[in-house]
Amino acid sequence: MTSPPPVIVLVRPQLGQNIGKAARAMLNFGLTEMRLVAPRDGWPNPDAGPAASGADEVLEKAQVFATATEAIADCGVIYASTVRRRDLVMPVVDPDQMASEIRSTSGRSAILFGPERSGLETEDVALASKIVTVPINPDFGSLNLAQAVILLAYEWSRQTELIQPTAKKLEAPAPMGELEGLIGQLYGALEETGYFFPPDRTQATKATLRTILTKPSWSSREIQALRGVIRKLCESDRAG
Amino acid sequence: MTSPPPVIVLVRPQLGQNIGKAARAMLNFGLTEMRLVAPRDGWPNPDAGPAASGADEVLEKAQVFATATEAIADCGVIYASTVRRRDLVMPVVDPDQMASEIRSTSGRSAILFGPERSGLETEDVALASKIVTVPINPDFGSLNLAQAVILLAYEWSRQTELIQPTAKKLEAPAPMGELEGLIGQLYGALEETGYFFPPDRTQATKATLRTILTKPSWSSREIQALRGVIRKLCESDRAG
Repeated sequence: MTSPPPVIVLVRPQLGQNIGKAARAMLNFGLTEMRLVAPRDGWPNPDAGPAASGADEVLEKAQVFATATEAIADCGVIYASTVRRRDLVMPVVDPDQMASEIRSTSGRSAILFGPERSGLETEDVALASKIVTVPINPDFGSLNLAQAVILLAYEWSRQTELIQPTAKKLEAPAPMGELEGLIGQLYGALEETGYFFPPDRTQATKATLRTILTKPSWSSREIQALRGVIRKLCESDRAG
Repeated sequence: MTSPPPVIVLVRPQLGQNIGKAARAMLNFGLTEMRLVAPRDGWPNPDAGPAASGADEVLEKAQVFATATEAIADCGVIYASTVRRRDLVMPVVDPDQMASEIRSTSGRSAILFGPERSGLETEDVALASKIVTVPINPDFGSLNLAQAVILLAYEWSRQTELIQPTAKKLEAPAPMGELEGLIGQLYGALEETGYFFPPDRTQATKATLRTILTKPSWSSREIQALRGVIRKLCESDRAG
């Protein structure tokens, strides 16, 4: 059994041309599922087609979402493609590590790419369980969107023959929508207790909790168990 | 002793823009020596600089030759980057094989790339000892010059230990004693709520929770944060 190819998620892409180039890069290595989060110039974009050089099937199937959270709701393992972020404490993997992890997981995976100019925002990166960074010349790091896509797609593709049949069959990580449910439930429970104080620290505290809960890649069964735990603690609150 | 980085030889390149993009692709992965064979529009080319996005040092050092034979005169191992040629009986290697061969040779090596539209002519390919081909989607092979350059440069670079400074500087997982503290605290809190029911299921339920909490390898800081969360939920219980 093989794991499905990763979904390529372009977060707030700017130029239609770059979306087309990314589609071309993907199809070269057999990736066909592109998702667009709030593309700046709307969708479809007439500049995308010519730049795709024939990778029209990728563009035609591309789905558009309002937020990155929605775009990855059915994916279990999320990678954020970015240079190393010093403001976030998250695992960082090389493209080949990412590729072998994607191969050995049984759920759907997604790779997030940020806007051309600025890259992913902190809150987008925080949706991912890991950062994937292409090891690059420390004195000249200048990868554009399509180049980042092609290198990660290439790594995924070159490990196609290397499927480890001995890999332990793990429970698939739950789709991100289920994790969001857990996170929302915990935030709600904590809000009632006055945990988020002072208000100006709330966002940072929530980001910390999100990182902690995203790290494990829990299965659906595990997330259900944890939701039961939180529910029980809250019930006792009301009863007390 | 390490072998020198390969020379990138662009044979009869057409657009200055593509020469610039190739330079950018090279420098991302630490390659700096570009040679141009009879560039169609002469050299220097004003379109190259802007497309290089700062990889000016590669363009400035670029040498121009009239023929491919002259361009590779000082190189010992030559690869021709092309799709597989059925009209030539030559060894064909993947990019990773090429990279490890370049690493283990002691002389200079060169990689030949053909013109954008047509690729290398038979007589250019015949100068090489091997063909290097990127394994690509058999139904959609559409790599442009800069993409072919970046994939081969990337493969060369990823086999260099020098360029691995993305070392994962993660927070260490907390000592198991700290995790036990968290688990004990949660068991205690849940016991008070009557979560462990019926009694004959208690052991199995505890084992499930332990597995869930052990999976993430949380750091000390993360465990402290979670202990604060549980404490807060319990405090509100007493206050309620």
